[in-house]
Amino acid sequence: MIVYYNGQYLDKDEVRISPDDRGWLFADGIYEVVRVYCGKPFRMLEHVDRLRHSASEIQLRLPDDFDLREISRELLQRNNVTRDAVIYIQITRGVAPRTHHFPPPDTPPTVYVLVRDFPANPQQFEEGFGVLLVPDTRWARCDVKTINLLPNTLASEAARQANAQEAIFVRGKAVAEGTHTSVIAIRDGVVITSPVDENILPSVTRSILLQLCQERGIPVHAEGLTVQSFLHADEAVLLGTTTELTPINRIKLVPELRHLGDATRFRTPGPITAQLQEGYRDLIQRECD
Amino acid sequence: MIVYYNGQYLDKDEVRISPDDRGWLFADGIYEVVRVYCGKPFRMLEHVDRLRHSASEIQLRLPDDFDLREISRELLQRNNVTRDAVIYIQITRGVAPRTHHFPPPDTPPTVYVLVRDFPANPQQFEEGFGVLLVPDTRWARCDVKTINLLPNTLASEAARQANAQEAIFVRGKAVAEGTHTSVIAIRDGVVITSPVDENILPSVTRSILLQLCQERGIPVHAEGLTVQSFLHADEAVLLGTTTELTPINRIKLVPELRHLGDATRFRTPGPITAQLQEGYRDLIQRECD
Repeated sequence: MIVYYNGQYLDKDEVRISPDDRGWLFADGIYEVVRVYCGKPFRMLEHVDRLRHSASEIQLRLPDDFDLREISRELLQRNNVTRDAVIYIQITRGVAPRTHHFPPPDTPPTVYVLVRDFPANPQQFEEGFGVLLVPDTRWARCDVKTINLLPNTLASEAARQANAQEAIFVRGKAVAEGTHTSVIAIRDGVVITSPVDENILPSVTRSILLQLCQERGIPVHAEGLTVQSFLHADEAVLLGTTTELTPINRIKLVPELRHLGDATRFRTPGPITAQLQEGYRDLIQRECD
Repeated sequence: MIVYYNGQYLDKDEVRISPDDRGWLFADGIYEVVRVYCGKPFRMLEHVDRLRHSASEIQLRLPDDFDLREISRELLQRNNVTRDAVIYIQITRGVAPRTHHFPPPDTPPTVYVLVRDFPANPQQFEEGFGVLLVPDTRWARCDVKTINLLPNTLASEAARQANAQEAIFVRGKAVAEGTHTSVIAIRDGVVITSPVDENILPSVTRSILLQLCQERGIPVHAEGLTVQSFLHADEAVLLGTTTELTPINRIKLVPELRHLGDATRFRTPGPITAQLQEGYRDLIQRECD
C-alpha cells in the first residue's frame, strides 16, 4: 500500500514515525477521515475546512503547500482505488526533543495520509447498531478533531464488551455524541439533535442530514437531546463519515447512568430514518453517475 | 544514544514507531519519568507502582517479563550515565489496524525506554518559576498518567507566551495541578494542598514532601487549595520529578480566571520552602553517598 508521508509517496512499511514525534508523545495532533465513493472523495471541501479549523484551534501550522485533494488523487491512483474507500489524514506538531510547550516554530509538522478500501455493509443500514450510554470523560474541546482519543477507545471497548457497536457520551443529562459518530433521535416526526458546542464535533454527515431534513420538510429541533428524549424516541440514528446513517436498534446504559432511564429497543430502520437514508444514498449515487 | 524498544537495546535512530501504533493514532498509552541521581534511579519502586496502576486503569496489559529496574540499569550502563539523568518510559497498546476499540488481546504493547542526562539547575531553586493559572480543560481521569497530553501542551505553551515557566490548571475555584508538576501553598506555617482525586495525579514528589512535613512537624492541610488561598499564600512551590521543589515567584491568571483574584508575587525561596528543599536535598544526597 502506498501512503503519503511528509512530502513523499512510499510503501506503508517504509513509514517510520520518530519516538520524538509529538503525536506519539503528547497526542499533539489532529486528524480527518474522508469517504470515497466510486473512487471520488465525498465532501472533501468540508473535511479540509474542518481540518484547517482543527489546526488553527491548536495553533498547528499546516505546511504552506499542503493540498489534500492533490494528495488524495495521487493516492487513489497509485493504489488503484476505483470504488469505496476511506482517506485517513493525520497531522502532528512534528519531531522535537520532548518539552510540553511547542517546539521551535520552524519544526515541520508530520503529515500522513492513507487510503484504504472500505466497502459498505448494507446489512448495517437495515439491522442497525446497539449503543451503550457512558459518562462523557473527555476533555473540554471535543469540537476539535484531535488524536487525544484514549477516552474514545475506552468507551468503544466498553461498548464492545456490552455487545454494542458504539458508545455514546452523556454529559449531565444531555446526549453529546458517539466515540466516532454523532447522534439524532426522532420523535413525533421531529428530528432532535444536540447543538454543536465545545463538547461536540461539527459533524459533516450531520450537516448533510440537516440539509436533507430541510429539503424534505422534516422539522428539526436542534436545542439539545436529553437522555430522557433519546430513550423515549420513536427512532434513533448514528451519523458519520464511515457509519453513514446507521439506525440504532438498542440503547443500553452503564450502571452509573441507570438513574437516567431504562434500556430500550427500536425497530429498524424506522420510517423517517428510511427516508433520510434514501436521501443520503441519492447524494452518494450522484458521485457515481 | 542507546534506548530500549520492544525487547531490544538499539540506537535511538533505529527506533521506528509504526503509523499503526495506537499511541500515535489514539494516545492509547501511558508513561512515567524517573529521576536518576548519581547514576541511581530515585524512588523507582513508586514510579513502577504508578505505571502499573496506570496500565491497569486503562486495561493495558504490560509484558509479563517487563522489568523497568533491569532495563534502566542496562540503559544507564550502556549510555555511561553516572550522574544526573532522567528515565522516560512510554508504553502503548501496540500496533494494529485502526479501530477505536481495543486490538486483539495478544497484540504486544509497544515499550520504549530512554535515558538522558538531566543536570540540575541550582538557580531555579533559588529564583523560582512564574506560573500562569488556566482553566482545566483536561479529561476526567487525570489521576492516570496517560499520553493524552494535548491540553497540557496547549497550557504549557500559553504559560510560555505569558513569560511563565509552568501553567497550573484550575477547576471551578480549586487549584488542581500543573501541566507536569503538582502544587502546594504555604500560609501561616501550614502547607496547603489539594486532595488526590480523579483530577490529580498521585505525585511521587508530593508524597515525599508530605513525609518531610511530618518529620519536621510542619502541619499539612490536604483538603483542597482554592485559587483564593493560593493567591494569598506566604509561599508556594511546584513539585515534580524533574522540577523537584521549585518555588513559585509569581502567579498570573488568564483573562477568563481574573474574576477569581489578582496576579501576585512571592519572595523566593520562602523560609518553609527552604526547609523542605533542604530535606529533599538530604534525601537525594543519601543516594549519592
